[in-house]
Amino acid sequence: MVWAKKENFADWYTDVITKSQMIDYYDISGCYILRPWSYEIWEHIQAYLDAKFKSIGVKNCYFPMFVTSEKLNREKDHLEGFAPEVAWVTKSGDADLKEPIAIRPTSETIMYPAFKSWIRSHRDLPVRLNQWCNVVRWEFKNPTPFIRTREFLWQEGHTAHATKEGAAKEVMQILEFYAGAYEELLAVPMIKGKKSEKEKFAGADYTTTIEGFIPSTGRGIQAATSHHLGQNFGKMFGISAEDDQGQKLIPYQNSWGFTTRSIGVMIMIHGDDKGLVLPPRVAPLQAVIIPIPVTDKDETDKIHDKGDEVLAYLQEAGIRGEVDHRRLYTPGWKYNHWELKGVPLRLELGPKDILKQQVRVVRRDTNEKIDIAFTDLKTKLPALLETIQKEMLERARKERDNCIRIVTQWSDFVKTIADGCMVLTPFCNEIEWEEVVKTRSREESLAILGEDGEADNTATSVAAKSLCMPFENNEMPMEPGTKCFVSGKDAKCWILWGRSY
Amino acid sequence: MVWAKKENFADWYTDVITKSQMIDYYDISGCYILRPWSYEIWEHIQAYLDAKFKSIGVKNCYFPMFVTSEKLNREKDHLEGFAPEVAWVTKSGDADLKEPIAIRPTSETIMYPAFKSWIRSHRDLPVRLNQWCNVVRWEFKNPTPFIRTREFLWQEGHTAHATKEGAAKEVMQILEFYAGAYEELLAVPMIKGKKSEKEKFAGADYTTTIEGFIPSTGRGIQAATSHHLGQNFGKMFGISAEDDQGQKLIPYQNSWGFTTRSIGVMIMIHGDDKGLVLPPRVAPLQAVIIPIPVTDKDETDKIHDKGDEVLAYLQEAGIRGEVDHRRLYTPGWKYNHWELKGVPLRLELGPKDILKQQVRVVRRDTNEKIDIAFTDLKTKLPALLETIQKEMLERARKERDNCIRIVTQWSDFVKTIADGCMVLTPFCNEIEWEEVVKTRSREESLAILGEDGEADNTATSVAAKSLCMPFENNEMPMEPGTKCFVSGKDAKCWILWGRSY
Repeated sequence: MVWAKKENFADWYTDVITKSQMIDYYDISGCYILRPWSYEIWEHIQAYLDAKFKSIGVKNCYFPMFVTSEKLNREKDHLEGFAPEVAWVTKSGDADLKEPIAIRPTSETIMYPAFKSWIRSHRDLPVRLNQWCNVVRWEFKNPTPFIRTREFLWQEGHTAHATKEGAAKEVMQILEFYAGAYEELLAVPMIKGKKSEKEKFAGADYTTTIEGFIPSTGRGIQAATSHHLGQNFGKMFGISAEDDQGQKLIPYQNSWGFTTRSIGVMIMIHGDDKGLVLPPRVAPLQAVIIPIPVTDKDETDKIHDKGDEVLAYLQEAGIRGEVDHRRLYTPGWKYNHWELKGVPLRLELGPKDILKQQVRVVRRDTNEKIDIAFTDLKTKLPALLETIQKEMLERARKERDNCIRIVTQWSDFVKTIADGCMVLTPFCNEIEWEEVVKTRSREESLAILGEDGEADNTATSVAAKSLCMPFENNEMPMEPGTKCFVSGKDAKCWILWGRSY
Repeated sequence: MVWAKKENFADWYTDVITKSQMIDYYDISGCYILRPWSYEIWEHIQAYLDAKFKSIGVKNCYFPMFVTSEKLNREKDHLEGFAPEVAWVTKSGDADLKEPIAIRPTSETIMYPAFKSWIRSHRDLPVRLNQWCNVVRWEFKNPTPFIRTREFLWQEGHTAHATKEGAAKEVMQILEFYAGAYEELLAVPMIKGKKSEKEKFAGADYTTTIEGFIPSTGRGIQAATSHHLGQNFGKMFGISAEDDQGQKLIPYQNSWGFTTRSIGVMIMIHGDDKGLVLPPRVAPLQAVIIPIPVTDKDETDKIHDKGDEVLAYLQEAGIRGEVDHRRLYTPGWKYNHWELKGVPLRLELGPKDILKQQVRVVRRDTNEKIDIAFTDLKTKLPALLETIQKEMLERARKERDNCIRIVTQWSDFVKTIADGCMVLTPFCNEIEWEEVVKTRSREESLAILGEDGEADNTATSVAAKSLCMPFENNEMPMEPGTKCFVSGKDAKCWILWGRSY
């Protein structure tokens, strides 16, 4: 079983997620089955984020997934963003419903009428709620498992604050949690920044984002977002409180979400031609023990028993381990099988290893082989897993950084994007000029790449989109005299462009 | 704020769940908002059951919530059970879908086609999956928050086994877990048994159940069910494996589910005229500390500071505690507030208590008051919480047992049911005779209760329904000569009847 991630990324991705038993396809387009091998990764992410949210006082709850059209339509900008993708229930059994009801694409319009009734006084603030749930966006772009699906799992946080500062602080706290989930758990490096006016969330004052990058496809990917909604929804839904002077106060609101897309990003970045490569902290299985059989059955039995002893060491060290006791498969078959599934460590255990009271440990990420004495397993394996975790992130960061280019004039822009890079430019930050970049880059890139240069590229995906204004690059004021790469006006910020998912 | 649980149960229930901030109403009938105060109880239940399921090898996953009508309709008995309640999506944005798609009322028909593709050999068995999700049943009976809602949260387990014995064993393991969640966490006693042919799950070979009882309304309530599906779905969906002789094997399947209804049952049983009474193991807050202010502000500040010290003792003991530091409310107001919310323990802390280095502890369930020295809090409070937990279950069990009657002839049956009891009878176990019981009891009870004797009783709810054949009463063979209470034929089993939700 050999795939070529480089040569045919789309087929590689489909193969690797199905053969590793992460995903199964389903007979409704855009819907996929999350099998235990991927769902368990989601459970690790949930545990991590849930603890972070609770640590700052956010509480979990559950709102209905249905919403009337009247409420859905109340915030116009928001509606525009979601209306074409909304799924409508119109019948129950054989009977038509009196009014069609929508399935949540996100829950602002579901939750905020309740906020209105709960918030009376400034003492009722902040309200900080989160729910883990499914949402439905009936998109017509090509679906991709994990990355763009019609139903997906996420958490959505919705909060209301007495002050803009309180809300703004939380927006950034949450963005840090999200970056932590990607970097610390999934070993995927993130760029934190702010979305442009054009790309911000429908109905928000501003959107902060973490952006990933898939080197194999040369595309950026929005990894998670944390929005400050200002008083927009508050005004639409009539939410107000009395402040301590008896004055009317419209709360400042945030919403923020993190989805199962994260699993797809992790797979795309770390997987290789042998299959998945899972970061240890989220791997359902961190180490698999393979007993190497000999011709004598009794001897083989002893080797299998020794495998269980080794497993006991692992369990004492808190490592998620398993012995592959199956007698019908050869060690070679098992190596391939567990490599495909991305298990971080393989422990080979043969008669010679047992004589030497050691086990041969093979890293999935580097294929490096190390002999470790039984007595050292408890200390060395946890350290090795942490090393792998760290090195996976470092390698991914290095590879990502190699794909970032600074461009200051339009003439270099499109070819750098078409080369599969992200491009950082000085920008005048005007929405019309962002439109210009999109349109022009689409036209020019089609000339470079050819109309059917890459089978899975729609016209949209060839166009450069702004990913974010990275915080890191915008900490200092622009150097005076810096000009926007496209308009030639004075530049207001550094902005990152790329093709994107 | 005084309610009368006895006099007007329906209003009491609505008041208590809304004023305690468990539930908020929503503008779509049958849909409710689960606020943090109830959702946190669900999180405790989830943690408990999830660990139990994993301990026997069940893995979590997530299947799409949409299903085509073709698949939904494949198992006819099953379809009949759910068809009238299915919600259909027919549009996305402004466009009609090519085919309407259903929202899961339960996921047998969604999951089992995947089982077909995953199960090839007996070595692929057992398959044991679970998902935590929402489901939709667009019922037309009167909705009741938690108890009967159009969207609700649950877990659904779906498993396939090589042998009937393996499947049957699991059915009972799961039923024990479910009974444990009710009895150990929610302090609600359960009767375990088997459903009659008439009441079993649509498409199952047999259904095991745990049944609760609400003394205030004299009604039984199905608390959770664990079904053995036999080979019914396997045949319909073409699931088969090769056994070790190369013969075709159709797996034996189970499905089992536990819902947010459980929270409603707990509230109905333990709540009183002051509000909720929460069992300590699931209470979001187990103890609230109320500083008693004095006229002098500095003194009052010291009392509040002492409250924080007491809280530290609680936290060291692993107790979920909080100090109510609000200065705008009187202690009396706070007592009522936290009683309404059902917090198991109130710790009153005044100047005299501080002099004596003690705190006055008040039990929510009995109103018993105990003084406990600061130095004893760490040991005595956890023990007290466990005592409360145990005694709540014991009291509920005693009250429930008082409402079980044995009846051997029809003439005693209806009036005992109408008295608000469950009735245990010898029964011939024929489905036609169960219909007779339902019809006749409805007619006779209407005569007793009057057509509008109780405002919230529909004709259906007055009719006696079989709840289950309790395992405990059917361990021994029937005594020879025992006759069925309704048909006069030889009795085959003891069965429990009641009005029900």
